[in-house]
Amino acid sequence: MIRTHDAGALRAEHADATVVLAGWVARRRDHGGVVFLDLREASGVVQVVVREDDLAHDLRAEYCIKVTGRVRVRPDGNENPDIATGAVEVVADEIEVLSESAPLPFPLDGSQDVSEEARLRYRYLDMRRPETASALRVRSHAGYVVHDVMRDHGFVNVETPYLTRSTPEGARDFLVPVRLQPGHWYALPQSPQLFKQLLMVGGMERYYQIARCFRDEDFRADRQPEFTQIDLEMSFVDQDDVIGVAEDLVVRLWREVLGYDVPTPLPRMPFFEAMARFGSDKPDLRFGQELTELTAFFADTSFRVFQAPYVGAVVMPGGASQTRKELDGWQDWAKARGAKGLAYVLIQEDGTLGGPVAKNLSEQERAGLAAAAGAGPGDAVFFAAGARRPSQELLGAARLEIGNRLGLVDTSQWSFLWVVDAPMFEEDGEGGWTPVHHPFTAPKPEWADSFDQDPAGALAYAYDMVCNGSEIGGGSIRIHRGEMQQRVFEALGISKESAESKFGFLLDAFQFGPPPHGGIAFGWDRIIAHLTSAESIREVIAFPKTASGGDPLTGAPTRITPDQREEAGVDFVPEDDGA
Amino acid sequence: MIRTHDAGALRAEHADATVVLAGWVARRRDHGGVVFLDLREASGVVQVVVREDDLAHDLRAEYCIKVTGRVRVRPDGNENPDIATGAVEVVADEIEVLSESAPLPFPLDGSQDVSEEARLRYRYLDMRRPETASALRVRSHAGYVVHDVMRDHGFVNVETPYLTRSTPEGARDFLVPVRLQPGHWYALPQSPQLFKQLLMVGGMERYYQIARCFRDEDFRADRQPEFTQIDLEMSFVDQDDVIGVAEDLVVRLWREVLGYDVPTPLPRMPFFEAMARFGSDKPDLRFGQELTELTAFFADTSFRVFQAPYVGAVVMPGGASQTRKELDGWQDWAKARGAKGLAYVLIQEDGTLGGPVAKNLSEQERAGLAAAAGAGPGDAVFFAAGARRPSQELLGAARLEIGNRLGLVDTSQWSFLWVVDAPMFEEDGEGGWTPVHHPFTAPKPEWADSFDQDPAGALAYAYDMVCNGSEIGGGSIRIHRGEMQQRVFEALGISKESAESKFGFLLDAFQFGPPPHGGIAFGWDRIIAHLTSAESIREVIAFPKTASGGDPLTGAPTRITPDQREEAGVDFVPEDDGA
Repeated sequence: MIRTHDAGALRAEHADATVVLAGWVARRRDHGGVVFLDLREASGVVQVVVREDDLAHDLRAEYCIKVTGRVRVRPDGNENPDIATGAVEVVADEIEVLSESAPLPFPLDGSQDVSEEARLRYRYLDMRRPETASALRVRSHAGYVVHDVMRDHGFVNVETPYLTRSTPEGARDFLVPVRLQPGHWYALPQSPQLFKQLLMVGGMERYYQIARCFRDEDFRADRQPEFTQIDLEMSFVDQDDVIGVAEDLVVRLWREVLGYDVPTPLPRMPFFEAMARFGSDKPDLRFGQELTELTAFFADTSFRVFQAPYVGAVVMPGGASQTRKELDGWQDWAKARGAKGLAYVLIQEDGTLGGPVAKNLSEQERAGLAAAAGAGPGDAVFFAAGARRPSQELLGAARLEIGNRLGLVDTSQWSFLWVVDAPMFEEDGEGGWTPVHHPFTAPKPEWADSFDQDPAGALAYAYDMVCNGSEIGGGSIRIHRGEMQQRVFEALGISKESAESKFGFLLDAFQFGPPPHGGIAFGWDRIIAHLTSAESIREVIAFPKTASGGDPLTGAPTRITPDQREEAGVDFVPEDDGA
Repeated sequence: MIRTHDAGALRAEHADATVVLAGWVARRRDHGGVVFLDLREASGVVQVVVREDDLAHDLRAEYCIKVTGRVRVRPDGNENPDIATGAVEVVADEIEVLSESAPLPFPLDGSQDVSEEARLRYRYLDMRRPETASALRVRSHAGYVVHDVMRDHGFVNVETPYLTRSTPEGARDFLVPVRLQPGHWYALPQSPQLFKQLLMVGGMERYYQIARCFRDEDFRADRQPEFTQIDLEMSFVDQDDVIGVAEDLVVRLWREVLGYDVPTPLPRMPFFEAMARFGSDKPDLRFGQELTELTAFFADTSFRVFQAPYVGAVVMPGGASQTRKELDGWQDWAKARGAKGLAYVLIQEDGTLGGPVAKNLSEQERAGLAAAAGAGPGDAVFFAAGARRPSQELLGAARLEIGNRLGLVDTSQWSFLWVVDAPMFEEDGEGGWTPVHHPFTAPKPEWADSFDQDPAGALAYAYDMVCNGSEIGGGSIRIHRGEMQQRVFEALGISKESAESKFGFLLDAFQFGPPPHGGIAFGWDRIIAHLTSAESIREVIAFPKTASGGDPLTGAPTRITPDQREEAGVDFVPEDDGA
C-alpha cells in the first residue's frame, strides 16, 4: 500500500506518528505561508497543514496526492467536531502528486445544484461526493447482510442464465442475436422465475440469488431497463415459511444498516381491506385519513353522480379554507390522473356545507354527511363515485396528496405490512382474465377447487411486502400440480399450444415429482433507496441509465457497424423460414 | 414447513420420535409384505419402512411424498454405514403423494452413462443426482466464502451494468437492440474492466463483484458464452497488495471447501522461465520432465532441422520401447497441433541412439545428447526446433501428454503459482503489436520510461495465478496517467481517434486525479471445477449451454416473430444514417 494509515482513522492517540497518506485534495485554504488541505479518501477526511509553499503551490482540487508527514494534536480551540479526525492534523513534510486533475465540471462539495445529466456523465466524480459514495457503500453493506441471512437459513446461491429464452412476465424482452445460430435470438430474463422453479423441481429446496433482471418497458419516472432483485424460492413450505424468511431479511437489513428494529410479525392486511381503507394495494400507514365508503349512505340519493356502485370519500383536515384556485387545482390534479374531476364538499365552521356538490344533496344527506365521512368543521371532503376499484384508487391518491401537502406523514416512522389475499385474476378489458401476479401463482387453499368457477372472486396465495407506501417485495406459493396449472391456463384463455410454446419446459419438468414450493422477490434497488432515504433508485445504482435508456458516461447505446451487424447474423434469412 | 425433520439428520437419538418427512422416492425394494423406500431430500437420505402394502403400492421412483412415521433404531446387523442415517429407519404410518412422476428419461442412481444432451435437457433431474447437486452446493458455499474474505478486506461490492457499450477486450460483443432508441444497440460486457477502473477514479478504493461476463466467441471445448468472474480492483496499491488479497481468497476457498491448506506465499515464476522450463505460461508443477534447451548444444550442427534459433527437448521416460505405431501416433498428435511433426531419438538400453533423427547427428552430438537432454537408457527424447515460443509450446504440450500417458501427475497434489513478468506486447503478425493482457496494463516500473522504445522486451506489471496447469486468475497494475496511456496506444498503433471512440470515457475520467490502481479477475467457473474435481465447467454451472450456445432445456435461442423484430427496432434505418 502506498499509504501507511487511513486518513479517516487518525486520532489524538496517533500524535507524533509519522504517516504516509494517499487521497484527494478536497479543499484548500491559504493562510499566508500556511496552506490547509482537506485530504479525502475512502475512510474519511483529515486536515493536512503545509508550511512550505513550494510543497503545495500547484495543488488544486481533486489532485490525487501522497502525503508524508507527522500527526499532531490541533491547538486548543482549533478542533473540528464535525469530522471524526477533528482533534488532529497532519503536518506535511513531503507531498507527491500521484495524478493531476483538470478543472472540475461541477464542485464536489454540494455547494450548488448539479443537473442529473452532468452527475451521470461524470459519475466517477459524483461518486466522490459523500451522498453517492455513501449510497454505494450502504448497498454493499446491505448485500453482505443478505448473504449472511440467507446462509443462516440454509439457502443455496445459484446463478441462473442471463442469455436465455423469452419468459412470460408480461413486459417486453430484450433480445440478443446469436451469431453461431443465425436467425436465432436469446432473450435477457425479466426475472429468474422459471429457473428458480426448475431449481425447486431439481431438489435445491432453498435457492436465492441477487439477480439482475431486464425489462424493455417504456421508461417511467423511476424505472431502469436493468434492475436487481433479491430472488428466493423454497420447497415444502407454506406462505408463513416464506413470510418468516422475508421478515427476517428485512429485520436484519434495517437493524444492521440503520440500527432500527422492525417489529415483527408484520401486520397482514387483506387486499380488499387495503383498497377499502387506503385506496391502494400498497398503503402507507404512517398517517390516517382513511377512506370512508358512503355507498349505503347515498343509496337513495337523487344526485346522479352518486348513483353509482361505489361512493367513497376522504377528508382533508382544514381543507374548507382552501382558495378557489386551490380547489380548482384539485380538479386539474384529478384530471391528470385520468379522472373526470374530484367532487368535494366544504364543511364550514358553522357546520353548513359549501362547494358545488352540496346543493345537489338532500337535507338529510347534508345533515348526516360530515359524521358519515368522519369530517368536522373546517374540513373538506373529497368524493369519488363509480366503479369500486378506480374510485378507491382515486381517493387513495388523493389521500397521499393530502398527506404530503399537509405534512401528515411521520417520516421518522417505518410502516411495513403484508398485503395478502389479492385476487387471482383481473379482467383484461377484452372479456377475459389476466393474472394479477403470474400464471404460476396458486389459489388460496380454499379456492383450489373453485377458482375457475369464480375467477372474479378467487384469491391468490400471494403476498406483497409494503414499506412506507411502496411495494418492496412480492411472492406467492406456486402451483406444483400439472392438473391445476392446466385449469389456470384455461381460465386465462391460454391454449395448450401457447402454454407449450411459451413455457413447455416448465410444464415438462412438473411431470417429474415437483415439490410444493413458493418464494418471493424483493426489489433491491428500491430497498436500498429506502435504506439511504434516496429519492430515486438512480441514486443507489452505480451506473444508472437515463429515462431514455442511455448512459451519459459511456454513450451507450451506440450504433453498430455494418460488419458487426452482418457478423451477428442480425439479417440472416433462413432458407426454410418458418419464423 | 411440511416436514418436521430433515431426513438426512435422523440419528439413533431420534428413536421413537414421530416425524413428518418430505422428499423424493430414490429407491424402492419390495420384500414380501414390507417395502423399503429410500427417501431423498436436500439434507440426505433415510430408509423408510412401509408395512402396509396399500400405503406404498403406487409409489414409483421420484414421486414427491410426505411421510409420517416413527424413527426406530435398525435391528442389529441391518445398519448401513454408507449413509449418515444408516443407524435408523422410519416406520411409515401415513404416506401422502405430493406429486407423481412420469417414468424417468434416465436413471438417477448413476447406474448408467447418460449423454450430456439428455442431462442438460432434463437438468432438473440431473440436479437430483448427488454429483450435480453437490457441485452446485459447493459453488454456493464457495460464494459465501468469497463474500466473507472480501468483507474482511474492506471491499465494496458494486454491481456494474450489463446493458452497456462495447468494451475493447478483443472478443466479439453480444449486442442488444434498443427499442427506445431505434438503430442503437447495447453491448453485453465482456468483463467489468472499464467500470471497475471508473470506480477507482470514483474513490471506491476496494471494489469486488461476482460478475457475469459475456463473450461471443467461437465455442471451444470448455467455453461458455456467459461465464462468471470474481472481479476485484484496489487503489493505492502495488502488485504485492493485490497478490496478497488474491492469495488469501484462494487459501480460504481451499481451506473452507476442501480442508486443504494452500502454502503461501505462492511461488512466483517469471513468464520466460515458465516457457523455458515447462513450455507453458501456465505450467503444471505436479510433475517434472522439464524441457531442456539444446540451442547451444546444436550450435554447429550439420542437421538442417536443428539449425534454428531454438532447439529444445523433453524426455519421455521409458519411451524408447514404444512401438512404431505409437511413435507414428506422436507425429499425428503433433500435426493435430499444427506442427510439422515431432522429431525424436530413442536411447537404447546400451546407450546407442535409434530413430530417424539419430543418423543425421554427428558422432559428438550422438555421444553427448543423452546427457545434454537429461535422458537415460530406455528413454525417448522429443525435439522441437524453430522459433522459440512455438517450439517451447510444442514441447510443453508434449510434456503434458507424456505426464498424462505415463501417469506422472500426482493428482493428490495442488500446484499453485504466480506467473509474473510477462511481456507487455506480442507481435500481431502484421508488423505491429498487440497487448498480451489489455491496453490498460502498466509496464513494470523499470520499463516505465522505455517500454515504447523496446516493445519486444518490455515487461508488464501483470500476474496470472495458475492452478494445476490452468490459469484461474489474471490481473495487473493499471496505467493511471494519461501520458503513459497515450504512449501505450501509440505503441499499439491505436490512433487518438480510435482510442477516443472506443474508451474515450475512461480517458476522460483519467483527467480527474485517478489513483494508482490494480486488480485481478478470477475465472469462477474454473475455480469451482477445481474445487469439485469436475472435468468441465459445464458440470458446475446450473444451466449451461452446449457447444453451439444452445440450452436443450429451454430451447434457447429461438427465432423471433416479425412483430418482435419490428418492435425492437432491429431494422430501423435512421434518416441521417451516419453509422
